[in-house]
Amino acid sequence: MPGPRFTPLVESLPATVPFVGPEAQERARGAPFAARLGANESVFGPSPKAIAAMAKAAGGAWMYGDPESHDLRKALAAHHGVAPDEIVVGEGIDGLLGYLARLTLGPGDVAVTSDGAYPTFNYHVAGYGGRLEKVPYREDHEDPEALIATARASGAKLIYFANPDNPMGSWHPAETVQGMIDAVPEDTLLALDEAYIELAPDGTAPPIDTANPNVLRLRTFSKAYGLAGARVGCAIGHRAVIRAFEKIRNHFGMSRIAQAGALATLADAAWLAEVQARVAAARARIGEIARANGLTPLLSATNFVAIDCGADRARAQAVLEQLVAHGIFVRMPFVAPQDRCIRVSCGTETDLDAFEKTLPTALSAT
Amino acid sequence: MPGPRFTPLVESLPATVPFVGPEAQERARGAPFAARLGANESVFGPSPKAIAAMAKAAGGAWMYGDPESHDLRKALAAHHGVAPDEIVVGEGIDGLLGYLARLTLGPGDVAVTSDGAYPTFNYHVAGYGGRLEKVPYREDHEDPEALIATARASGAKLIYFANPDNPMGSWHPAETVQGMIDAVPEDTLLALDEAYIELAPDGTAPPIDTANPNVLRLRTFSKAYGLAGARVGCAIGHRAVIRAFEKIRNHFGMSRIAQAGALATLADAAWLAEVQARVAAARARIGEIARANGLTPLLSATNFVAIDCGADRARAQAVLEQLVAHGIFVRMPFVAPQDRCIRVSCGTETDLDAFEKTLPTALSAT
Repeated sequence: MPGPRFTPLVESLPATVPFVGPEAQERARGAPFAARLGANESVFGPSPKAIAAMAKAAGGAWMYGDPESHDLRKALAAHHGVAPDEIVVGEGIDGLLGYLARLTLGPGDVAVTSDGAYPTFNYHVAGYGGRLEKVPYREDHEDPEALIATARASGAKLIYFANPDNPMGSWHPAETVQGMIDAVPEDTLLALDEAYIELAPDGTAPPIDTANPNVLRLRTFSKAYGLAGARVGCAIGHRAVIRAFEKIRNHFGMSRIAQAGALATLADAAWLAEVQARVAAARARIGEIARANGLTPLLSATNFVAIDCGADRARAQAVLEQLVAHGIFVRMPFVAPQDRCIRVSCGTETDLDAFEKTLPTALSAT
Repeated sequence: MPGPRFTPLVESLPATVPFVGPEAQERARGAPFAARLGANESVFGPSPKAIAAMAKAAGGAWMYGDPESHDLRKALAAHHGVAPDEIVVGEGIDGLLGYLARLTLGPGDVAVTSDGAYPTFNYHVAGYGGRLEKVPYREDHEDPEALIATARASGAKLIYFANPDNPMGSWHPAETVQGMIDAVPEDTLLALDEAYIELAPDGTAPPIDTANPNVLRLRTFSKAYGLAGARVGCAIGHRAVIRAFEKIRNHFGMSRIAQAGALATLADAAWLAEVQARVAAARARIGEIARANGLTPLLSATNFVAIDCGADRARAQAVLEQLVAHGIFVRMPFVAPQDRCIRVSCGTETDLDAFEKTLPTALSAT
């Protein structure tokens, strides 16, 4: 058929999606989920102050958002102890990872990640023709030394490392991460995804050092701050690296409502503390439910818990399918041996009541 | 300095922004604008139903937006008489133009546009290494025949054509546009930007024909629908072309609040009719104000009016600077001879009172 000419790279790409959304699953099963515990969203919601700010901003949605996200960058800079021009605000970490892949990767350029880590990073790398080198997890943790060694051996331009990790919920202490940072090759960029950092123990994040051009810290309002649906994240790093985003980003891509919500939640430390407490309680309860059913919960520094179902992928998959069939939306890791687990996000008490009630049924049906 | 390696293309790009936002101008002048008439936003606001829907959705912003934008695509499909898989929803036309450039353009590939048309298109073309061929306006209208001839001569992969046009507000009737569509080379894609179509006379848009893989219709909620700050647009076309977006788009890039607002406004035909009436009245009044000051308003099928200041760029620039200095945010075309004009967005009565009061002062000071 005659028609437009796509690039050779685009012709070679599959039409793929990193994740199927819960709404699509609900449409397929013809019923809503009773508990939405699969996407590591914050069921405790956004800060009431953020909700109020967004509701107020809705009437002003006729105005484009400030393309500089000036006020939000200023607040983030104060929050993190850096300068505003050491921060770029973007459409969630997903959007920022896309920009980052575009900035660094041409066809054949190497990016290193952990095998089974964030699929959206892999999607963006493939989307710019990059070549992924994948490093195995080590005892359910990402392996900093192996990531660095692989980056060095392959001449990688980009390393992706999440701390805490998704999908396992594991984490490394700040000293380990600092050791990794110190070992990054001098022409490589480490994308340090700290999406869950507000939910991790003190001492998980090394100090932010914007004098180092080899590290970019990625933070988001999608997890602890409960604003996944607003799409706000930021990257913090050396101003020369931050400036590069100005060359390619969608300058008018930020929602004005999202900017208002992020600004309001950043000022509401009490809400963050409350979410942290609720997440900790929910993690504990998910662990209890798992153990009561003969399963093994993994330690988590995030708002989800990976639960070892005690066998292989087939077993975990069967448990997941039964949970989903009974209205409990959960997900699971993609790669062995992590795929012996299901991954359950922290829920409200009602959500976890439903999980507690359904899990024995799901297990007995598998 | 050691540091990350960007792609050669990125190294070659300037850190640029298609437009400086009004907020940055306000920060520079140290005072807010009295009237925000420079960005062709809809000062009449979003539909009250959209505001209510977004305010309600704010509490649910902890959930990611549906990556398929299923409900919104379904509603848009019904609205436009096409199938849902002939529509892709994206982060405004800006976001969709970025995806489109990425889908089609590699280094040196040609895209054709009008000289002085939408800078954000040019930004995206440059950002993917494409080569821009620019065609002059003809009597303040984009020139369909010249665009087609240039595309044919240059082997262009992409043509950008806005109808109605920005920044001049001029338009071509549907028959002319259909003639252009019929003449698109069989391996070229025409991006037909109809951002302002709801504000144009009946008979401006040719029928949507999704059997034709060579045309993509771009529509937005940013103009007549008053949701610029929510970031929602869509592209309508052949399903094979639409499917290509699935390979590269940021699947979880849509704000859940924006999806709710767009869905609500699409169902509120009464609000659209009211905006159309207010825009028509504001256009007329801007014309009267211009004429009363000895200037010549151009006919417009949009929510703004280009005003011929009667001389050259220097004159228009001086008038613009005076208006801005007196708190009236307006913009102007970039390229001669269109840059003899200033561009004034439709305002509320209060906005236009301020414009009416300020214009004589601005003119006498130049």
